[in-house]
Amino acid sequence: MTVSYGFHATMTAQPGRGDELVGFLLASPSLAHEDCVVFLVGRSAADPDVVHVTEGWTSEETHHRFFATAEAQGLVARLQPLIAGEPEYRDEVPVGGRAAL
Amino acid sequence: MTVSYGFHATMTAQPGRGDELVGFLLASPSLAHEDCVVFLVGRSAADPDVVHVTEGWTSEETHHRFFATAEAQGLVARLQPLIAGEPEYRDEVPVGGRAAL
Repeated sequence: MTVSYGFHATMTAQPGRGDELVGFLLASPSLAHEDCVVFLVGRSAADPDVVHVTEGWTSEETHHRFFATAEAQGLVARLQPLIAGEPEYRDEVPVGGRAAL
Repeated sequence: MTVSYGFHATMTAQPGRGDELVGFLLASPSLAHEDCVVFLVGRSAADPDVVHVTEGWTSEETHHRFFATAEAQGLVARLQPLIAGEPEYRDEVPVGGRAAL
């Protein structure tokens, strides 16, 4: 499947809650969504509370439609207390490669 | 497979050679290497010459062993003229998720 929309987000968990944040992200329904082609969670080796997610979607529209659902908005509400400050977004659209996690 | 070593690299292609750099990265033998669990290539939506690669390896040792081979060193030599300056590395180790590219 081709990706035409994506981003790289970096979040800092509340102190000591990095594992919880990673678990939360890996339980995200995005992973099972047919239009979510890439959902890759990463962590800083130096700071276990710094967590990254790279997302790639078939289109901006499919992402935004999912993001507007009550389910997704509920996730955002549950995510907020887990992180310190706002996520930092970077302009990165996945274009190829693989992840055999 | 589990990843215990990884990084996120951002490279800027020589002007107008972003497509060539992406093609070069996607032809990398890392993609077929059994210890390379994640090799995800991404691009900036705003600047087609800015290219990212997120790598995840079973261990630092397997990565370094591959990187020391004549094959890998040949790739590095062929990569240099394609990029402007040095790659920028970020501390990111893939831990989970998927890429169905």
